[in-house]
Amino acid sequence: MRDIAAEALGTALLTATVVGSGIMAARLSADTGLMLLANALATVAALYVLISVLGPVSGAQFNPAVTLALRGEAGQTWSRAAAFVGAQVAGAVAGTALAHAMHGLPLWQTGTTARAGAGQWLAEVVATAGLVGAIVLARAAGRDAAGIVALWIGAAYWFTASTSFANPAVTLARALTDSFAGIRPADVAPFVAAQALGAVIGLYGARALTAKDRAG
Amino acid sequence: MRDIAAEALGTALLTATVVGSGIMAARLSADTGLMLLANALATVAALYVLISVLGPVSGAQFNPAVTLALRGEAGQTWSRAAAFVGAQVAGAVAGTALAHAMHGLPLWQTGTTARAGAGQWLAEVVATAGLVGAIVLARAAGRDAAGIVALWIGAAYWFTASTSFANPAVTLARALTDSFAGIRPADVAPFVAAQALGAVIGLYGARALTAKDRAG
Amino acid sequence: MRDIAAEALGTALLTATVVGSGIMAARLSADTGLMLLANALATVAALYVLISVLGPVSGAQFNPAVTLALRGEAGQTWSRAAAFVGAQVAGAVAGTALAHAMHGLPLWQTGTTARAGAGQWLAEVVATAGLVGAIVLARAAGRDAAGIVALWIGAAYWFTASTSFANPAVTLARALTDSFAGIRPADVAPFVAAQALGAVIGLYGARALTAKDRAG
Amino acid sequence: MRDIAAEALGTALLTATVVGSGIMAARLSADTGLMLLANALATVAALYVLISVLGPVSGAQFNPAVTLALRGEAGQTWSRAAAFVGAQVAGAVAGTALAHAMHGLPLWQTGTTARAGAGQWLAEVVATAGLVGAIVLARAAGRDAAGIVALWIGAAYWFTASTSFANPAVTLARALTDSFAGIRPADVAPFVAAQALGAVIGLYGARALTAKDRAG
Repeated sequence: MRDIAAEALGTALLTATVVGSGIMAARLSADTGLMLLANALATVAALYVLISVLGPVSGAQFNPAVTLALRGEAGQTWSRAAAFVGAQVAGAVAGTALAHAMHGLPLWQTGTTARAGAGQWLAEVVATAGLVGAIVLARAAGRDAAGIVALWIGAAYWFTASTSFANPAVTLARALTDSFAGIRPADVAPFVAAQALGAVIGLYGARALTAKDRAG
Repeated sequence: MRDIAAEALGTALLTATVVGSGIMAARLSADTGLMLLANALATVAALYVLISVLGPVSGAQFNPAVTLALRGEAGQTWSRAAAFVGAQVAGAVAGTALAHAMHGLPLWQTGTTARAGAGQWLAEVVATAGLVGAIVLARAAGRDAAGIVALWIGAAYWFTASTSFANPAVTLARALTDSFAGIRPADVAPFVAAQALGAVIGLYGARALTAKDRAG
Repeated sequence: MRDIAAEALGTALLTATVVGSGIMAARLSADTGLMLLANALATVAALYVLISVLGPVSGAQFNPAVTLALRGEAGQTWSRAAAFVGAQVAGAVAGTALAHAMHGLPLWQTGTTARAGAGQWLAEVVATAGLVGAIVLARAAGRDAAGIVALWIGAAYWFTASTSFANPAVTLARALTDSFAGIRPADVAPFVAAQALGAVIGLYGARALTAKDRAG
Repeated sequence: MRDIAAEALGTALLTATVVGSGIMAARLSADTGLMLLANALATVAALYVLISVLGPVSGAQFNPAVTLALRGEAGQTWSRAAAFVGAQVAGAVAGTALAHAMHGLPLWQTGTTARAGAGQWLAEVVATAGLVGAIVLARAAGRDAAGIVALWIGAAYWFTASTSFANPAVTLARALTDSFAGIRPADVAPFVAAQALGAVIGLYGARALTAKDRAG
């Protein structure tokens, strides 16, 4: 149960950071670039902390794409993976509410920012493939994943065209805010599909790179 | 005595950083978002340094909420904890004076920035709970707390609605500046109460997450 | 083969980050300084991640100047080094196309930004010498190169006059974009020549600093 | 001889970063706060790299205040310390010339930015005391100094009133540029005096904190 709680808590705080820092940035700055910079830096910092301190409890995935892609590697049963995903989705939705409550907004809203088109979907494929691939490769190399995951997302905020959602639970929860980090509900499904495709590509791509040459 | 001095010194330099970087940022920039970004980055950097170098001397808490929440875990007597808190408050007040002296202002002023309301109080609960929880979890995982504490505060500057004071001593000292980081004296008590509540939540929450399942 | 693929993949994602974050920054911000800051921070983050996770696979050079300068130290045959360089160039060109595809632009364009003159060439010498020198010195000291390489490039984005291309493959690929990170095709050759000179200076300079005094 | 060369090289590249990134930032941005942010971040990154890779060669002090304050602890003769200081000053002066050459300016100029007054001198005392104290404490705790020194300077760029010169050699060399990082020649001597005082305070303060209680 502690791991399920950790996944819910971590995803809630991650989502609260993404949504809350976007609200704060849009209130304070007049430059959209600076808004995204604050949004990205806050997310990097929160991801590093949450993965560092909750990693030993649950693995700190906070992301259904990661949980499902790595289910086999983690030796997790399907029912346990489903519980993780449920906790992540519930946590993300609660995180949006937490950000809204802190910033004096209704607990949930409906996103209105259009995020669609081939470029953005490709961006989600790339961002999620990189995320899953980096985790698999970091693990194979015995490196701590906290900084790697946090900085990958930080880079992907900027180099992709979608600002790198790369997380189905957080994407869903971002449809519940009409702020800087929001997304139109109609745009969620293609984003999640792109993330699923990216996770598969990242998993098999990283496996190919780490496979013994004999087996390659 | 060395640990008491380290707590005073560290809290003084932390507070001088929070207040001083806010003054500098407001003087140099025309964008409030950039001011908060400079303020947050300077605080992250100073926290990392101060915790890294003073940690071996005193534990580098610099924060009455942390000292009191972790008193039992640290095996500290009440009188020793009280001495820490006294040193932290004195250090924080001195730190504001130091920042003002460097920037050519009267040593102490009266804060005029209103910081109140349910959203901001909730923000202080969340920021302080996260701070105390992260410290407990980092310790349980055997991880160095300097980067974790610094980056949690950095994220919380942005995702909470209060810019994350999360420290009763520093909150009090920020009532003594009428600059970017200031707070109205009347708003201090509710902030400190919220921080106390957050510290308790963080302590018990983190304990629940690290407890053996049998004991959970 | 896995190492060749890793060099192509890493250089592609590095180039996509450089080009893509420049496009994003120029779209979002009104301040050219902020554009370069976002561009630099995204590059630092991506470099850290890519070197960390692909280093164990291929050495994570992603840069013909580094591959050729360190060929002897790495005990690499000329044909293997040539394969690396080919993979890096192909990867970089693909990375520009990936960034363009994500951002809804034609896959390749022709750069129009003039980057020439003695100051910029000197800047490329300094940036590349520092890069190669830092790698040699980090290796001699047994330090992990990911953070060192990433932060050197981050600093050099700002202190050199050229924003530090420091990579022949990426320079070539940046001639294929007419965006923030672009360069006129006519300006590529002098940049690459300056990088080659810098790589030689960095290699011999670092060797002189690490040589035993007896041999110095 | 290698250590003397490393001190000259490191101080040159540090100074080139401080001066060069200031020139670049002032050319690109319209916001003075953003200029200082770029200047500070570039300095943090360069310091981390230079200390990391040149530390094993010379100790990577790059700073007469540090060299002289720690001469006894490092078991350095006075003549060797003098050689270090000479190398640092020569390196810093060359670093300004390097930055100017890259940016198409005359090799040396005369600084015109007034930096004087009790507040700024106090700021230099604090910044240098913190720098020397952090190095002594980091060493006593067996912690790597690269990140600690770099982030202390990064914080001090913002929280002090002087943007933290904290280095007599670099201060002197900054009198030779009429750009963002410049200083009026007449203002150099009081800055250096304040740095000297700060170094002494930092040394004895840190020793007091690390002394055994019996000896305290």
